[in-house]
Amino acid sequence: MSERYDIAIVGSGPAGLSAALNAKIRKKSFIIFGNDDLSGKLVKAHEINNYLGFYGMSGKAIKEEFEKHIKAMDIRITNERVNNIYAMGSYYALMVNDKMYEATSVILATGIQYGKLFPGEERLLGKGVGYCATCDAPLYKDKVVTIIADSKNEEEEANFISTIASKVYYIPTYKDEVEVDSAIEVVKDTPVEIVGEDKVEKLVLKNREIETDGLFILRDSISPGQLVPGLKIQDNHVEVDRSMKTNLKGCFAAGDIVGKPYQYIKSAGEGNIAALSAVSYVDALKKEAAK
Amino acid sequence: MSERYDIAIVGSGPAGLSAALNAKIRKKSFIIFGNDDLSGKLVKAHEINNYLGFYGMSGKAIKEEFEKHIKAMDIRITNERVNNIYAMGSYYALMVNDKMYEATSVILATGIQYGKLFPGEERLLGKGVGYCATCDAPLYKDKVVTIIADSKNEEEEANFISTIASKVYYIPTYKDEVEVDSAIEVVKDTPVEIVGEDKVEKLVLKNREIETDGLFILRDSISPGQLVPGLKIQDNHVEVDRSMKTNLKGCFAAGDIVGKPYQYIKSAGEGNIAALSAVSYVDALKKEAAK
Ligand SMILES: Cc1cc2nc3c(=O)[nH]c(=O)nc-3n(C[C@H](O)[C@H](O)[C@H](O)COP(=O)(O)OP(=O)(O)OC[C@H]3O[C@@H](n4cnc5c(N)ncnc54)[C@H](O)[C@@H]3O)c2cc1C
Ligand SMILES: Cc1cc2nc3c(=O)[nH]c(=O)nc-3n(C[C@H](O)[C@H](O)[C@H](O)COP(=O)(O)OP(=O)(O)OC[C@H]3O[C@@H](n4cnc5c(N)ncnc54)[C@H](O)[C@@H]3O)c2cc1C
Repeated sequence: MSERYDIAIVGSGPAGLSAALNAKIRKKSFIIFGNDDLSGKLVKAHEINNYLGFYGMSGKAIKEEFEKHIKAMDIRITNERVNNIYAMGSYYALMVNDKMYEATSVILATGIQYGKLFPGEERLLGKGVGYCATCDAPLYKDKVVTIIADSKNEEEEANFISTIASKVYYIPTYKDEVEVDSAIEVVKDTPVEIVGEDKVEKLVLKNREIETDGLFILRDSISPGQLVPGLKIQDNHVEVDRSMKTNLKGCFAAGDIVGKPYQYIKSAGEGNIAALSAVSYVDALKKEAAK
Repeated sequence: MSERYDIAIVGSGPAGLSAALNAKIRKKSFIIFGNDDLSGKLVKAHEINNYLGFYGMSGKAIKEEFEKHIKAMDIRITNERVNNIYAMGSYYALMVNDKMYEATSVILATGIQYGKLFPGEERLLGKGVGYCATCDAPLYKDKVVTIIADSKNEEEEANFISTIASKVYYIPTYKDEVEVDSAIEVVKDTPVEIVGEDKVEKLVLKNREIETDGLFILRDSISPGQLVPGLKIQDNHVEVDRSMKTNLKGCFAAGDIVGKPYQYIKSAGEGNIAALSAVSYVDALKKEAAK
């Protein structure tokens, strides 16, 4: 059996990092999923003036301070994308492609997707349009799959799909160099519209069209309701109380994902609260079990 | 008429400072009350490891970073203690001894008092025991007043009372040098119990007793219900919703004062939210008035 963590933190922005500091200080076993950038929204910020303690610094510079902090506390980020989280009763199962992690409690800190949906996206969702290629992979055996990817992290997912699908088109919306398997056709173009009657038929781009059976839009954050089935959502955000509890026992959330204002220190503050709530939850379960 | 500020922030700990940064960035007129230490609880902390971005620093060192930040943004703290805040309908009146300030909205960020009450304190509250000497000064004309003070900031209040009372005993619980008017008797001893039947009669200290007509306990924070009459309190904390609104329109709160966990970054995050909520409130009122 794989190790069961006390706490799994999903997301490495200010909310997730702040949660990790507190999980560490409280001596819980935990895993934090995210990426080397920590937060795409952080590194992109030109200048940040409302994070108390840092003045006039770029997001990149603040990111480096965050990095120093977690390194000094020996916190390592697991550079993997969680596709789905299932509430299993007494624990959570976190799916990462073909791997599974277990944790007694979960802290959702995946941020939100600021961008707009593509025309046709909402209507064709579940009708060939999806957000997790790996999850739906069996449906696309020997079919054509198109992937729109917002970050380099998705390349692995594309490679995996290409072992199953007959053809994979990969449309990167990021600037880094693309390094995918040679069987994948990389299309450097801008998606405009998703077309189809009852099912996705094609993706219209600025300069060409692609006929496809499946279309996966891999954004930096997927909607929390898709990530965690059963999670209560209100106005597009995860519903939480002031202790950052969601409607699912042992599942907490913090940061942009729980609502406005979208801000760094608000997110970090909530990560702090969520971690302490998760610690209490785990401790109470352990006490119960020891009885 | 005195200037009416858009926002008055009461308290200069992480919650109040973070609120001030955001009020400044949003170009609101504001005043922030507090003291040079910023937060007694901050400077006292030996080492802080859970404020994301700062590792292994003392509270004093972090305080210096906070100070640099607010100075760089040209934010000045008004070194005064707010005794009472009254909701006047369309604005708030903030009483500072014999001065009054006006503000359209208020952010309460006064922290909480960790210490225990003295035996007899609760029972004799309002019966000679009080928390704001200046407010009750007229009651003690030519009488004996005793003051227990948790910080050097209270010396001014003692001096003021001694111009009215016949005799003032001053018991500092802090370590700084005491500099009060020579008419005041400074008693370096530890308060043990407050004694009296229907009214305070004396204060018992470790080594002596003091007969007194009035006893003022000037702690770093007074209870928010006393500070703002009409404020809804739950479990000793100010009740707020997730946007940091209290039950009083235009009155917001953040930090330890709104509840556990008592933590720096949680407080700063809430100060951020409270400020943005106050900004929205002020903007909506201005729009309304412009109609
Ligand atoms: C250009 C720009 C400038 C900004 N400027 C400011 C500013 O000056 N001040 C301010 O206060 N705020 C600012 N913001 C807002 C701020 O960036 C956000 O409020 C903050 O980053 C939210 O933190 P978070 O931890 O909730 O999420 P994020 O910072 O979005 O981090 C979420 C992380 O989780 C990862 N993740 C998501 N899903 C998964 C998954 N399934 N598995 C694993 N990892 C996952 C993401 O890749 C990301 O790294 C700015 C935003 C932008 C875009
Ligand atoms: C020794 C110690 C160590 C700690 N270590 C940690 C730690 O490692 N990590 C962590 O996260 N937390 C720690 N804490 C908790 C942390 O100090 C508090 O959570 C935090 O300071 C709360 O911030 P605040 O802004 O709400 O209030 P405070 O920091 O208490 O600030 C309130 C300010 O308002 C002023 N004020 C009050 N009333 C008035 C008034 N009427 N008029 C004008 N000004 C007023 C006060 O003088 C004070 O300066 C520690 C606390 C202590 C005591």
